[in-house]
Amino acid sequence: MGGDHAPQVVIAGADMARSRHADLRFLLFGDETAIASLVASRPGLKDRADIVHTPEKVEADAKPSQVLRHGRKSSMGLAIEAVKEGQADAVVSAGNTGGLMALAKFVLKTLPGIERPAIGSLMPTKRRETVFLDLGANAECDAENLVQFAVMGEVFARAVLGIKKPTVGLLNIGTEDLKGNETIRQAAAALKDASLPIEFRGFVEGTDLTSGTTDVVVTDGFTGNVALKVAEGTAGLYTHVLRQAFKSSFLSKLGYIMARGALNATRQHLDPRRYNGAMFLGLNGVVVKSHGGTDALGFANAINVAVDLVQQGTNERITAELNTLEDDVIQGLRARAS
Amino acid sequence: MGGDHAPQVVIAGADMARSRHADLRFLLFGDETAIASLVASRPGLKDRADIVHTPEKVEADAKPSQVLRHGRKSSMGLAIEAVKEGQADAVVSAGNTGGLMALAKFVLKTLPGIERPAIGSLMPTKRRETVFLDLGANAECDAENLVQFAVMGEVFARAVLGIKKPTVGLLNIGTEDLKGNETIRQAAAALKDASLPIEFRGFVEGTDLTSGTTDVVVTDGFTGNVALKVAEGTAGLYTHVLRQAFKSSFLSKLGYIMARGALNATRQHLDPRRYNGAMFLGLNGVVVKSHGGTDALGFANAINVAVDLVQQGTNERITAELNTLEDDVIQGLRARAS
Repeated sequence: MGGDHAPQVVIAGADMARSRHADLRFLLFGDETAIASLVASRPGLKDRADIVHTPEKVEADAKPSQVLRHGRKSSMGLAIEAVKEGQADAVVSAGNTGGLMALAKFVLKTLPGIERPAIGSLMPTKRRETVFLDLGANAECDAENLVQFAVMGEVFARAVLGIKKPTVGLLNIGTEDLKGNETIRQAAAALKDASLPIEFRGFVEGTDLTSGTTDVVVTDGFTGNVALKVAEGTAGLYTHVLRQAFKSSFLSKLGYIMARGALNATRQHLDPRRYNGAMFLGLNGVVVKSHGGTDALGFANAINVAVDLVQQGTNERITAELNTLEDDVIQGLRARAS
Repeated sequence: MGGDHAPQVVIAGADMARSRHADLRFLLFGDETAIASLVASRPGLKDRADIVHTPEKVEADAKPSQVLRHGRKSSMGLAIEAVKEGQADAVVSAGNTGGLMALAKFVLKTLPGIERPAIGSLMPTKRRETVFLDLGANAECDAENLVQFAVMGEVFARAVLGIKKPTVGLLNIGTEDLKGNETIRQAAAALKDASLPIEFRGFVEGTDLTSGTTDVVVTDGFTGNVALKVAEGTAGLYTHVLRQAFKSSFLSKLGYIMARGALNATRQHLDPRRYNGAMFLGLNGVVVKSHGGTDALGFANAINVAVDLVQQGTNERITAELNTLEDDVIQGLRARAS
C-alpha cells in the first residue's frame, strides 16, 4: 500500500518481476478488494500470489516514532513480520522510508555486531555501477559506524554486482590524509588496518562517485542523502535544459527526431528506475525500499535486488565478515578512541 | 602563477575581462619574463596591466600551514597584500584553494562579527542561478557559522545576481523540522527569528539545489564540497553517456550533426566556466578563487565576479547586515546553546 501509486504499481511490478524469476512467489499485504481486482487481470501472477488483507496502512508523512507505536498491524508492519516468521524471504516496500526502517529495526533486529543499519543503493558511473551508502538512515555517524558500513557495502557489491574483490572508498572533500573531520580520519585509519579483508582505497571525492573510482563509496547518512539527491537533481536539470534546447528551432526539432534513438539510450542508461531498490543493510532480514514515485519497471527492479540479496546470502556473508571485524578492527578503533 | 595552465590562461582571461570593463586595471604577480612576453602580444591589455615580479610561487599541493609559513612573499601572498594595502580592489587566483584561504584570512582578516569565511559560488538551476555556500572552507560548522553563511549568501545574491529579496534555504535531508542534526535545527530556529531581514524558507533538499527552490542554499563546507563535486560529476557522466550514444550508429551520428546547435546550447547553459569564480565571503577584502583547470573564458568570468563584488560594495553590505545579526540573532542563539 506504500508509494505514490499503490497498489497498482506494486502489483504491476510484481508481475514483471515474476516473469523474470520462475520460482518467485508473493505475499501481498494490503486492501484485499483493491489488490484482488488488480491481480485477477494478471493470470501469471494470480497463481503465485497470496493476498493478506490488512485494513491499516502507514501514511507517507507519518513520523518513525508514530509508525513504531501504531504501525505494527499495518500492511508494512505485517509484511516485515512475515520475514521474521520465515513466511517470506524478503520484504519490498515503496512506503514511508523512516517508518520502514524503524519497524524493520524493531521487528527484525540488527545483525550481530551492527549498531545501526544503513541504506545502500547502486549508482550509475562512467565505469560500472557503484554501491553507495548510507543514503539517509543515520544523519550522524561515528567512525565505527562508517567502518561497519564499509564492510556491509563491500559484501553488497560482491553479492549484487558479482565483483570478486570490490574496492572501497570513503567520501571526503579531498584525498589527502588530513582532509575532512576527525570521524572520517579515524574511520580511514581503521580501514587501512591490514588485517581487514577489504580493498580500501582511502578517501574519494564527489566526482569519484560518478567516475566509478571505487566499487563502494561510504559516507554518513546526511552527506549520502544530499549527494544522492544532488545527483538526481543534476541529471534532471541536464534533461530539462536539453529538452528546452531541442525545442528552440525547427532544425533542432529535426535533429531531435534523428537523434532520438541515442537520446533514449542515454535516458535508459541513466534511468533512475534501473537503480531503484535501496537495501537496508545490517538487518537480520532482507528489506528493500523502492522509490515512492517509481513505476512498475522500477518496482520490479527493487524486487530483483531483493531476490539477488536472498539468493546470494548477503546477510550471512555480512555477519561472517563482521565477526572478523569485531575482533580486530573495532577493538583497535575503540582502543584508539578511548 | 596558480592553476593548471598559468600564466597563459590568467593573461588571456584578463585580456577578455578587460574588453568587458573599460576601467579595469591589473596588477599581475608572478614571473616577469613569462608574463611580459604573454602581455606584449596583447596591446589592449598591455596599457592596463602592471607586472610585479615575484620569483616565489605557491605549489598546488602545498598544505595551508606550509603556505602560511612560507608563502607570504609568493605571487599569491603579494597579490593579497596588494588588496590589504589598497593597491588593488580585489584578488583573483586559480591557485591552491586552502593556501589562498589561509593567506587571505591571515593578511586581510575576517569582517567584524564573522568567525569563519565561507566559499560561495553560483550554481545553474532550472529557474535562475542559486548562490551555494560553504563549498569547502569549513569541514565542520556550528549553528552560528551557518547563520552567518546565510547572511553572507543573501547579500552575495543581492550584489551579484541583483535579486531584491533573495530567498534562503538550509540544506537538509528532509524538509520537516525534525530532520537532520542538532546543529542545523538550531541554525534553522535562529534564521526563523522574525527580526532577521532574510526571506528564510527553512530546510531544502539536494534536489532543490538544481530546481532553484531558493536563491541561496546554505550548508557546511563538507556537505557543500561533496554536493558541488557530485553535481560536476553527474553533469560529466551525462555528457559522457550522451557522447557514447551519439557514436553508436550512423543514424545517431547524423542526428548529432542536426542537433549540434541544441547540444552546444545545452553545454553552454551548463558550462562550468560560466559559473567559475568562487568568492571567499566574510573576509575584509574581495578574494575570488578560479577553478584551477579552467580556460581563459572561465578565468575572465572569475574576474567578472570580483568586479561585481567590488562595484556592489558586497563586503560593506555584509558588515552592515552582520551588525543587526550580532545584536539580535547570535545573542539568542548563544543563549539557547548555553
